[in-house]
Amino acid sequence: MTVSSNKITTAAEVESFLSQYDDFLFDCDGVLWQGDVLLPSVVETLDLLRSQNKRLIFVTNNSTKSRQAYTKKFAKFGLTVTKEEIFGSSYSSAVYLSKVLKFPKDKKVLVIGESGIEEELTNAGIQYIGGTDPAFNSEVPADGIDKLEHDPSIGAVLCGLDLHINYYKIAHAMMQLNTPDQETLFLATNIDSTYPSHGKLLPGAGTIVGTLETCTGRKPVALGKPSSAMMDCIKAEFEFNPERACMVGDRLNTDMVFGTKGGLGTLFVLTGVDNEASIFAENRVASPKFYIDKLGSLYELLHGQNN
Amino acid sequence: MTVSSNKITTAAEVESFLSQYDDFLFDCDGVLWQGDVLLPSVVETLDLLRSQNKRLIFVTNNSTKSRQAYTKKFAKFGLTVTKEEIFGSSYSSAVYLSKVLKFPKDKKVLVIGESGIEEELTNAGIQYIGGTDPAFNSEVPADGIDKLEHDPSIGAVLCGLDLHINYYKIAHAMMQLNTPDQETLFLATNIDSTYPSHGKLLPGAGTIVGTLETCTGRKPVALGKPSSAMMDCIKAEFEFNPERACMVGDRLNTDMVFGTKGGLGTLFVLTGVDNEASIFAENRVASPKFYIDKLGSLYELLHGQNN
Repeated sequence: MTVSSNKITTAAEVESFLSQYDDFLFDCDGVLWQGDVLLPSVVETLDLLRSQNKRLIFVTNNSTKSRQAYTKKFAKFGLTVTKEEIFGSSYSSAVYLSKVLKFPKDKKVLVIGESGIEEELTNAGIQYIGGTDPAFNSEVPADGIDKLEHDPSIGAVLCGLDLHINYYKIAHAMMQLNTPDQETLFLATNIDSTYPSHGKLLPGAGTIVGTLETCTGRKPVALGKPSSAMMDCIKAEFEFNPERACMVGDRLNTDMVFGTKGGLGTLFVLTGVDNEASIFAENRVASPKFYIDKLGSLYELLHGQNN
Repeated sequence: MTVSSNKITTAAEVESFLSQYDDFLFDCDGVLWQGDVLLPSVVETLDLLRSQNKRLIFVTNNSTKSRQAYTKKFAKFGLTVTKEEIFGSSYSSAVYLSKVLKFPKDKKVLVIGESGIEEELTNAGIQYIGGTDPAFNSEVPADGIDKLEHDPSIGAVLCGLDLHINYYKIAHAMMQLNTPDQETLFLATNIDSTYPSHGKLLPGAGTIVGTLETCTGRKPVALGKPSSAMMDCIKAEFEFNPERACMVGDRLNTDMVFGTKGGLGTLFVLTGVDNEASIFAENRVASPKFYIDKLGSLYELLHGQNN
């Protein structure tokens, strides 16, 4: 790659950077906060952007919470963010089903996942089974599995992180997906193999989705970063000009790839998974247009504070 | 491939075939029985082989039952088979741990699977945790997952088909396997993505193993067909001359590959997954040395019955 990344280190560079964009898409963990700790000057930076009439969109692959539920996570950090400013992978999946696929009203979605998916499907007027329904989450007798059949009223299987995954759910989804015509759609909220929790990595949605991939030999359409299907859903929802939008993130292989593939500008922050060396590595998967020590430096540099 | 397969269709060909081998390794489903139905003349054929002092070894990837428990399946069909004649993937795993790896007596195996694995590990004098222990199989609170740590007393994770798979088990195994030095061994009883049950395909051990592959990025040593590790265990146990042994099976990509890679003769039967066209297909993965309509034809041809 020949594109080089520009580090933002002065007030003038901040002003020049901000003048290029109207819409800012943010990854959350590693950008706004690290685990349970809010990063410095994030509140002030978001206020700064709002005061300049920038539009803020918070993009998360977390499928276990609906947008409404996710606002509480922001509130916990003292950040006032509306449901409409949040774009989670469950919502992305609901938008994809309803707006892109025009999912038939008389068909159902089999949900392998948590309440976040259920709430977003309900909001979008899409019927579903599975999810947190106790019939899918209690011990199912062996003959319940033997009696499983393909159900033609199920038009799609949508799989995300499921902390209550069990054999019955996997077998149920397999029975729907594993037909010769493969007419039942296979969607995944996201395919991250792991996710960080309390300083550890735990199995992510991709680990759950992988069970269905293995037993069916099929690959899902993924609706989380860095899938272009998610970007298409965001563009459909917010109708922004990609050239005037900037993706802000801490990971090259998700956030920066996501922004670059979508034709957006990119701002890489050094408060997360990857570091400064990552963006100059020979085998880097993306070259962000801009990078900065931390998001809060946008505010601090403009206001003459030490970085 | 240039090897051609010889179809056995006369009594003289049966006699010539039988004279070439002392040991017969059998796949079970699709060879001896189909689901719940015993195939014709199987009893007589096994008696014939025994009367000629052939040694019989029944090889199964089913890890949910120990060899002792699996004898009951044979008895149900009226077949008298001893524990010592059965080589299941759970036993294979126990042999591999104890004889090949010399697994330390002071270390434990984390079992993701059913009682078949537990029984064979107990028989081999290997300590384990997990498996059917209720502490791994009841609803585990979220803080149980957050408290999970790498446990250096766990020397290996052994994963098979687990009809009671849950998130806690996956996270527990991930915590053991996902260390920088990768010193905890990763074994799988087998990696079949699906298995047939009552005329349907259901998610197999490979689907469960796949969860650990996805969240750790590691590949296990597989101890079932067609893994050469299983063949090594069988050879260590029975000490036969491969050139005087014949693998009998209904699948090219498991049984016939397994026999061929192990340097054994191979007999392909047409009562299972693959058919006659499979062995002449351009892209075939194995060319069996012999094939026959069904196993029972060995007896029927010798005794002048219609095939």
